[in-house]
Amino acid sequence: MSEWLTSLKTETPQEGFELAITLARKGVGYTQPSAEIRKKLRPEYEENADSLTAASQVIAIHYQTVAAANNYWK
Amino acid sequence: MSEWLTSLKTETPQEGFELAITLARKGVGYTQPSAEIRKKLRPEYEENADSLTAASQVIAIHYQTVAAANNYWK
Amino acid sequence: MSEWLTSLKTETPQEGFELAITLARKGVGYTQPSAEIRKKLRPEYEENADSLTAASQVIAIHYQTVAAANNYWK
Amino acid sequence: MSEWLTSLKTETPQEGFELAITLARKGVGYTQPSAEIRKKLRPEYEENADSLTAASQVIAIHYQTVAAANNYWK
Amino acid sequence: MSEWLTSLKTETPQEGFELAITLARKGVGYTQPSAEIRKKLRPEYEENADSLTAASQVIAIHYQTVAAANNYWK
Amino acid sequence: MSEWLTSLKTETPQEGFELAITLARKGVGYTQPSAEIRKKLRPEYEENADSLTAASQVIAIHYQTVAAANNYWK
Repeated sequence: MSEWLTSLKTETPQEGFELAITLARKGVGYTQPSAEIRKKLRPEYEENADSLTAASQVIAIHYQTVAAANNYWK
Repeated sequence: MSEWLTSLKTETPQEGFELAITLARKGVGYTQPSAEIRKKLRPEYEENADSLTAASQVIAIHYQTVAAANNYWK
Repeated sequence: MSEWLTSLKTETPQEGFELAITLARKGVGYTQPSAEIRKKLRPEYEENADSLTAASQVIAIHYQTVAAANNYWK
Repeated sequence: MSEWLTSLKTETPQEGFELAITLARKGVGYTQPSAEIRKKLRPEYEENADSLTAASQVIAIHYQTVAAANNYWK
Repeated sequence: MSEWLTSLKTETPQEGFELAITLARKGVGYTQPSAEIRKKLRPEYEENADSLTAASQVIAIHYQTVAAANNYWK
Repeated sequence: MSEWLTSLKTETPQEGFELAITLARKGVGYTQPSAEIRKKLRPEYEENADSLTAASQVIAIHYQTVAAANNYWK
């Protein structure tokens, strides 16, 4: 896979949150590399409350990592 | 997305908890940007015990981050 | 919401555990503010083994935070 | 509830693991205080592979806390 | 239960991973002490993709603990 | 099992992410050692949105470990 992540550093906590979202999606992308299939699956979870909560949880886990990498933007 | 998070610092542990809730909801909001669809899904999980526990879990994960960022309000 | 959390400090590890339970419940309470609906849902998970395990897991996550805040009561 | 937890310190990593199990069970016990109902639910998860994995996960989370409290028994 | 865990220290990151697997299995073993029942349940999760992911998750949580105990084998 | 992991150190955050994926898969591989069965199960989760989220979550947990081992590539 081409280069997509060179640093966990971000300017702000919000950019860090957006990086956490990228990491969560990349975890899916490496597991299911077909963009077509991922697109097909999107409606399945985007309109399911529990699936959205699960997606939010993966983001939360990555956000712990990104926040620590940025010393919590202190 | 417009600016919604400039700091993980809060005055009190309770405000930190409320920030954790915001982070959990933002994780959903970025995944399903349509406020209309999110509203439609709300009854699905707000009256389901397991969905509420799952939501509470995402909050708990974010609260770990927020609490660390505030040095546990020591 | 009125003030319910002013400190993560507790006297003992057991009080810390009980605070973790409060935090887990608050996560549910903020998501479903109606005490009536929460009461209606109680039998749904209180007599379901997997729901109880899930509830115990949220407590475990919060207990990590509370224990760290208290320097593990060392 | 009477006193059941006075310290997270244990002599060995194995005793720490057993304390983690106690903590996981207490999380269930506080949520469903009836020993009778808990006993009734036991067969439901004790013979279900996914329930056992979930129980093991709660233990794993508590073990992180107990291990940190004991400085990993270094 | 007889002694099975005297240290979280391992020589290599791979041995640490294998210890994490042991810890995950012990969590199941303490919850369902019957080796016979555990054996009966094995096909249930060994051929189910989601069950395997869940098992891998428990290992991941324990691996965090083991890696920290070994200062990440730095 | 032959040697597959000698260090948690990686050159870049992206290589660390790819190591986290390896760790997540190894967790499955140790639990279900048959490559044939794992292959058979692949379509089951690769085309299921919730299964992909769950896989991404295990990666996220391992990434916390790998990132800490690399001092967040600071």
